[in-house]
Amino acid sequence: MSEQFDAVEVIAAKRDRHDLSDAQIDWVVDAYTRGVVADEQMSALAMAILLNGMNRREISRWTNAMIASGERMDFSSLSRPTADKHSTGGVGDKITLPLAPLVAACGVAVPQLSGRGLGHTGGTLDKLEAIPGWRASLSNAEMMAQLEEVGAVICAAGAGLAPADKKLYALRDVTGTVEAIPLIASSIMSKKIAEGTGALVLDVKVGSGAFMKNENQARELAETMVGLGTDAGVKTVALLTDMSTPLGRTAGNACEIAESVEVLAGGGPADVVELTVALAREMLQAAGRVDVDPADVLASGRAMDTWKAMIRAQDGDPDAPLPVARETHDVLAATDGVLTRLDAMAVGVAAWRLGAGRSRPGEVVQAAAGVVMHAKPGDTVRAGDPLLTLHTDTPDRFERAVEALAGGYDIGAEPAPARSVVIDRIT
Amino acid sequence: MSEQFDAVEVIAAKRDRHDLSDAQIDWVVDAYTRGVVADEQMSALAMAILLNGMNRREISRWTNAMIASGERMDFSSLSRPTADKHSTGGVGDKITLPLAPLVAACGVAVPQLSGRGLGHTGGTLDKLEAIPGWRASLSNAEMMAQLEEVGAVICAAGAGLAPADKKLYALRDVTGTVEAIPLIASSIMSKKIAEGTGALVLDVKVGSGAFMKNENQARELAETMVGLGTDAGVKTVALLTDMSTPLGRTAGNACEIAESVEVLAGGGPADVVELTVALAREMLQAAGRVDVDPADVLASGRAMDTWKAMIRAQDGDPDAPLPVARETHDVLAATDGVLTRLDAMAVGVAAWRLGAGRSRPGEVVQAAAGVVMHAKPGDTVRAGDPLLTLHTDTPDRFERAVEALAGGYDIGAEPAPARSVVIDRIT
Repeated sequence: MSEQFDAVEVIAAKRDRHDLSDAQIDWVVDAYTRGVVADEQMSALAMAILLNGMNRREISRWTNAMIASGERMDFSSLSRPTADKHSTGGVGDKITLPLAPLVAACGVAVPQLSGRGLGHTGGTLDKLEAIPGWRASLSNAEMMAQLEEVGAVICAAGAGLAPADKKLYALRDVTGTVEAIPLIASSIMSKKIAEGTGALVLDVKVGSGAFMKNENQARELAETMVGLGTDAGVKTVALLTDMSTPLGRTAGNACEIAESVEVLAGGGPADVVELTVALAREMLQAAGRVDVDPADVLASGRAMDTWKAMIRAQDGDPDAPLPVARETHDVLAATDGVLTRLDAMAVGVAAWRLGAGRSRPGEVVQAAAGVVMHAKPGDTVRAGDPLLTLHTDTPDRFERAVEALAGGYDIGAEPAPARSVVIDRIT
Repeated sequence: MSEQFDAVEVIAAKRDRHDLSDAQIDWVVDAYTRGVVADEQMSALAMAILLNGMNRREISRWTNAMIASGERMDFSSLSRPTADKHSTGGVGDKITLPLAPLVAACGVAVPQLSGRGLGHTGGTLDKLEAIPGWRASLSNAEMMAQLEEVGAVICAAGAGLAPADKKLYALRDVTGTVEAIPLIASSIMSKKIAEGTGALVLDVKVGSGAFMKNENQARELAETMVGLGTDAGVKTVALLTDMSTPLGRTAGNACEIAESVEVLAGGGPADVVELTVALAREMLQAAGRVDVDPADVLASGRAMDTWKAMIRAQDGDPDAPLPVARETHDVLAATDGVLTRLDAMAVGVAAWRLGAGRSRPGEVVQAAAGVVMHAKPGDTVRAGDPLLTLHTDTPDRFERAVEALAGGYDIGAEPAPARSVVIDRIT
């Protein structure tokens, strides 16, 4: 077949700061998926996009081209409205785990297609796989049935959804082109739009443990994604949330499941509860359910019932004991004072090095590895108290985990300034 | 073996506008040559270099790393000094053909490692292959013997010279990253420095038929290359020369050989003679021979003797008839007047489409294809006179060649402003 464009011509256009036409974008995404545009051509184009940008029309077209590369799911036959949430990734970010059953218990179906972790951020599927028996892969029919019966499903995205994005993401990962807002936004949104959710709430994280280190970048990403969702007919809202310190008191796999279950039982750390309820309110509102208060539903225990049903539907045993690490190591406070800073990136890297995360796709993670935090910023500590407990099955990992934590926290005399988890709301 | 750096880290540094360290540059060029850095990683880095630039230290180190990827030639055992010339490429640019024997006849050896053409610019080796029997490939021993005996050699660069550059150039060609001054300069200079010439004169062309369309870019490229040569201990000078109109009255292969022989016989177009003598003076001066005037040597016929010896040494017959095209087509002047413009790119593309050039490496070219120009800017023409004669063995090519010439020349009432071929000299 004769090709409509030449790859070099499309690369040169973006390199020379021209806008790409709709036809150029449709062609280059499709031709890359077909293998006609080679990896070395797409990576040069990705770098040109990273450095020269794309306008809203280009990003929207690029997103649609990635959606068109695969199948689209359709939940319109469900008896309930649907809402989904996407987080740009952070440390200790287990929010999906209590959130999905909570929103489902409020009457809105949650079709969560999740991923695995890479680097210092954990993946929701890795966490759930700490539960004995639980499986991540569902057929479309199983997913639909579970949504109808339980109301919530968290599972792996099938290979048929936005294959262009899968191929492009793997390429960006090895070519230094992950950090392009147009490509991040279109990658996330192509999957979420193809997934067929009716409403979408984005949790865009900002801070040391987040992908976006400063608020301006995070805001730009949030606005871009809200625009893309709205253009595609998905009711979309974004919260800008703090990721300078980990969420909750655990970062790992099994330990985050345990903490999530505490939240579903009406306890748990205040920041996890705050963000779970805030995101649930946004999802319910976006889906048109403004008559229920998720805080009440959480207190009632109904969200816990949905959690157990959701885990069981995917062959997991919600009542089975969670895996326990073979070894632990405590990091102690050196002085009396107030914990004024606990860096999200330092904790994330420590958990990763303990075996909770992976360095490349396909690596096996340890279910029981992770970091338990005994103090959070603002808490008073005494010299000799354990600040953090490190968990792993392979104790040769402690040394590098402790190294990652060096300089990652401060104990001071004055109280840390109180900060809210939610920084802003973008519609 | 454990690698010193990670490719993504090096790409990210240049992407984020940091200078690359010497160690990073040495590693990335070597690792790319070894295949440890993949094509899709190098193309992303090349695009980042194109858009974010490199400073003089980085370019110099990059050039040295490419030289270190292969062998270095050494002509210090020759009884004569050496000087070489490199042109950035133009239309009708046959200057190497009379220049090499002329400089050799003046007592300076010329080791010209040349290339083949691509696109609208012809290649010196393609032109010489129009001579029956002539061969481009010589062993290093043959090259050395010919330099000692004849004083001039024009041959293909062996595979051992700067293999990193060969691999990188092929990649840049398909990824829209050819147009990066640091990469152009290091590509040219790595080969010329590895070739081992004592002196080097650069003919940096500017204008529609040149790679550099504007004088500022051409000047930047010239200054960069002169700096690289000087840093490497090669006496280097550059002339900025005009390529808005073709050089001489021929653009093709056999027709350019014939025109070069006219110059060696004391005739030929004034612009070709002017540039040949100007470049010869620079090469002689750079090699320390200031006692001979190349214009005198050209007039004496001694350069013609060297030409014939040089062709015979490579199995060519300098007295054999040159190939003649099977078909010709005349483009006629539509009105009386003065030819005020004859665009180099239009003529170059026409010659390419007639079969004198190639669209991709490895394509066979026609020895007899090309364009003969009966008028040059400033010449008076009459309606119905032939302006150009197109030559090809395959007459179905005429239509697209004529299309390439549409709008490529103007006939006006007033004389065209006189312009010198040499615009500036950069040391």
